[in-house]
Amino acid sequence: MGTQHPPSLPVTERTRLRRMPTRGTFDRAAIYRFLDEAFLCHIAFVVDDQPYAIPTGYARVGDTLYVHGSAASRMVRALAGGIDVCVTVTLVDGLVLARSAFHHSMNYRSVVILGRAQLVSDPGEKTAALRAFTNHIVPGRWDEVRPMTDQELAATSVLALPIEEASAKVRTGPPKDDADDVSWPAWGGVIPLSLQAGVPVPDAHVPPGAAPFPVERVARRSEPGA
Amino acid sequence: MGTQHPPSLPVTERTRLRRMPTRGTFDRAAIYRFLDEAFLCHIAFVVDDQPYAIPTGYARVGDTLYVHGSAASRMVRALAGGIDVCVTVTLVDGLVLARSAFHHSMNYRSVVILGRAQLVSDPGEKTAALRAFTNHIVPGRWDEVRPMTDQELAATSVLALPIEEASAKVRTGPPKDDADDVSWPAWGGVIPLSLQAGVPVPDAHVPPGAAPFPVERVARRSEPGA
Repeated sequence: MGTQHPPSLPVTERTRLRRMPTRGTFDRAAIYRFLDEAFLCHIAFVVDDQPYAIPTGYARVGDTLYVHGSAASRMVRALAGGIDVCVTVTLVDGLVLARSAFHHSMNYRSVVILGRAQLVSDPGEKTAALRAFTNHIVPGRWDEVRPMTDQELAATSVLALPIEEASAKVRTGPPKDDADDVSWPAWGGVIPLSLQAGVPVPDAHVPPGAAPFPVERVARRSEPGA
Repeated sequence: MGTQHPPSLPVTERTRLRRMPTRGTFDRAAIYRFLDEAFLCHIAFVVDDQPYAIPTGYARVGDTLYVHGSAASRMVRALAGGIDVCVTVTLVDGLVLARSAFHHSMNYRSVVILGRAQLVSDPGEKTAALRAFTNHIVPGRWDEVRPMTDQELAATSVLALPIEEASAKVRTGPPKDDADDVSWPAWGGVIPLSLQAGVPVPDAHVPPGAAPFPVERVARRSEPGA
């Protein structure tokens, strides 16, 4: 039980933060909190000398990040070759309005994970990862839906990326105006931003009179910079 | 006046959509609408054989996408070398809940731009780009804030990426359940998601009794898939 690895990740030459190092953290708990709140990542990888950044869903299980896709997808096939990747997760928390354009900024939390992904072949691990994807979007969803078939399992590729070389970066708080600018007659402060769920839209197969989907089930679970 | 380029971008071997090609578009107007609604991109680039995906702000002016950063940042210095990049912008519009885990999906709009960025040296173009960044976050903001100094201009690097090789991908609409699954007793449909502004938080320098910041100024401007 408990954490298998030290609570802080190693600082490597590749994850050392050159800009604004005070915004950085290598704390595994903070990194995992951000990963568990967001659900979309961008994966950077190279095919034929061209880098790509492709958005996709993910889920974390323990110290492993899983992504999945059709076994036929170019990204999945490229990643399954064990190439270097970078998985980046970014949560935008606010627009920071200063009295100068120069000091405008954003509040955000981001995680960068470097490494090489491996194709998951063990059916148990694969099923656990697919369960994690589904429940990461809607907690408890896996047990509500029609069980996965062997055919579906075979058509889905799951890739595992160990969380060993990673860092997070966080900006919170008000603008940092120059002292001479604070009396400039423009509003200064933060406009909080968050991804919010709207009113669920049932499809044509939901019986009339059925209970609406409880939108609080998809509410995000942590607070900016908490 | 008017569009300088054909309304549709060329389909290249690198931007051709292999998966779900019906979700793709090369229509310049659609691509620009998505770019103008979002404000955060992920830039993929390679340093020492390692790909990175780094989040940053951007703005579009005509057929050019601009990013900026400190002249001292590793990303800016790498990109200024004229290396291959991929700029990806993703808007998440909803969670798609099907009756099987396999058919769960997301509604989204994403844009991928491939090319090489160039450092902007012309002061006029640089200033226009910085004005576009600022007004992209809050329309009209540039004219409200303390004018930029020459020193600030010198400390900021602006990179220009021509929008010549790009594509967009869109998923909209309800889940696509298997016919045998539609009577499965689980709710199916879409949970709309959108980035929403909360109540603006003034900093310590806003005079007591000053008017609150009108949050509708940062409201996003287009509709999913519109």
